[in-house]
Amino acid sequence: MSLVVVGSVAFDTIETPFGKVERVLGGAGTYIGLAASSFDIEPKLISVVGNDFLEKDLEMLKNKQINTIGIQQKADEKSFFWKGRYSNNMNHRESLATELNVLGEFDPIVPKSYQGAEYLMLGNLSPVVQRKVIERMEKRPKLIVMDTMNFWMDIMIDELHQTISLVDVLTINDEEARQLSGEYSLLTAAQKILAMGPKYLIIKKGEHGALLFDKENIFSAPALLLEKVVDPTGAGDTFAGGFIGYLAQCQDISFESMKTAVIVASAVASCGVEHFGVEGMKKVTIDKIKNRVKQFVAIVKFDSKLKI
Amino acid sequence: MSLVVVGSVAFDTIETPFGKVERVLGGAGTYIGLAASSFDIEPKLISVVGNDFLEKDLEMLKNKQINTIGIQQKADEKSFFWKGRYSNNMNHRESLATELNVLGEFDPIVPKSYQGAEYLMLGNLSPVVQRKVIERMEKRPKLIVMDTMNFWMDIMIDELHQTISLVDVLTINDEEARQLSGEYSLLTAAQKILAMGPKYLIIKKGEHGALLFDKENIFSAPALLLEKVVDPTGAGDTFAGGFIGYLAQCQDISFESMKTAVIVASAVASCGVEHFGVEGMKKVTIDKIKNRVKQFVAIVKFDSKLKI
Repeated sequence: MSLVVVGSVAFDTIETPFGKVERVLGGAGTYIGLAASSFDIEPKLISVVGNDFLEKDLEMLKNKQINTIGIQQKADEKSFFWKGRYSNNMNHRESLATELNVLGEFDPIVPKSYQGAEYLMLGNLSPVVQRKVIERMEKRPKLIVMDTMNFWMDIMIDELHQTISLVDVLTINDEEARQLSGEYSLLTAAQKILAMGPKYLIIKKGEHGALLFDKENIFSAPALLLEKVVDPTGAGDTFAGGFIGYLAQCQDISFESMKTAVIVASAVASCGVEHFGVEGMKKVTIDKIKNRVKQFVAIVKFDSKLKI
Repeated sequence: MSLVVVGSVAFDTIETPFGKVERVLGGAGTYIGLAASSFDIEPKLISVVGNDFLEKDLEMLKNKQINTIGIQQKADEKSFFWKGRYSNNMNHRESLATELNVLGEFDPIVPKSYQGAEYLMLGNLSPVVQRKVIERMEKRPKLIVMDTMNFWMDIMIDELHQTISLVDVLTINDEEARQLSGEYSLLTAAQKILAMGPKYLIIKKGEHGALLFDKENIFSAPALLLEKVVDPTGAGDTFAGGFIGYLAQCQDISFESMKTAVIVASAVASCGVEHFGVEGMKKVTIDKIKNRVKQFVAIVKFDSKLKI
């Protein structure tokens, strides 16, 4: 049940219709690690930060049972910084600044104590860095989950294809699935993407839920309905963290178990977007997640012996 | 199990990335009537057409067991005509022409043989016309379902509110629910809309499924995944027709039954969008609908005794 997570640990300045936060802790690695740490595992984080990184943030991660020895600190560089603004209906976001800083030359180191992990989560990063982590694991993990985004499709599609071919589960959103496959129908898109190598594909649809595919099966999970979405930053990451965190805890990677993992992942992600930055994930408890899963079951259940 | 449907019977010119059809039979009344006629009922249609209406189209409706005596024909006017074009990803459509013609002064007549119907479906039309039909039914139907759209919210919100307060079920899409309620969260929007009078609200989300609400309960149904959507025209109407058609057949209007009706309605609508105009609805059979419902059950089922 050992889980290694690679992803950015960064600072974000975020503006949404509900307010603004400046230079708060963020990054895919942070969100994934916090989400996964809700389960009975100690995520081992691989990342890089700069000389501006705060001791209190590191302490918070450690207090959440996240192993941080794989986080390199560069004395003469700054941490990755992202600034973004969400539109009024939260459906669109504009990147106002993206300063790669330490991420520009990120050479991921897998500490000795991380070796032998059975689960590996590749957070959204350059596919070259993601592949290096796979290569530097002495034993191939039982399950490799990879998150990515349209940015890498735009600038390094060949490298992306190479990394995708090495993983077990790919998670992307619906627009990205369409871009990667060149198909509008998500059904056809999924079949094309599965032919690129991964055994499973998860298409994240935000407020519309998520789809899980393998070559034979489909599972469609609607999202929970929330009264207020304050800040959607990191929702894809916390989904991924909840997904692999649950699987690493239950140690069952069948399609049936992955269905549950998708529901659990949605529940975890729903807890994150109700607060700014990582505040939601800092507060989340396994009881809150269980409660959300119960709500999910309540809104989707119906008598499957339909009389027509 | 008698069902009265009011809605336009019209000509449409439709352009989608998959082709173009000119002046084909369309209109909410047509789509709803055809969808409802898949069930073991004979929908009684109330509408108006012009002197350009074709005998063959009337015959087709009659052959589908649709009662057409409530369709008035105006000798000196033309039928309602709509021309529209869908964007490449089918997510947006542009109205290129809307000629009201006979619909402009439509005064709906409820034939004597339509009186006493237990189910009434108000297809998208002016809320004033919809209300006239309710008023002209001598006995209030057991269930009144109303479809509407943003157009009426823009130009006659007071009339719309008045009609909404008289019906049992309102069906609108997600953007319309947000416009009508002034709330972005569909959860909050639903509660505000239910406070306007209807006992039930259905929010149609197209390729993302549908939500059914009453004051205490929520049911979230994802959509079926289709390989090809050729023409989405009338999908909301066929959804509504499938919904009320199923309920009129099974004569059970409990929330549980409405859940099934939503699933059935999605299945019916999915059959319609695979062909241009009403061709999909002309071909649909109860077996095809049952098969789609089976597919739905297959993609949403999971072990609800989740171990976390």
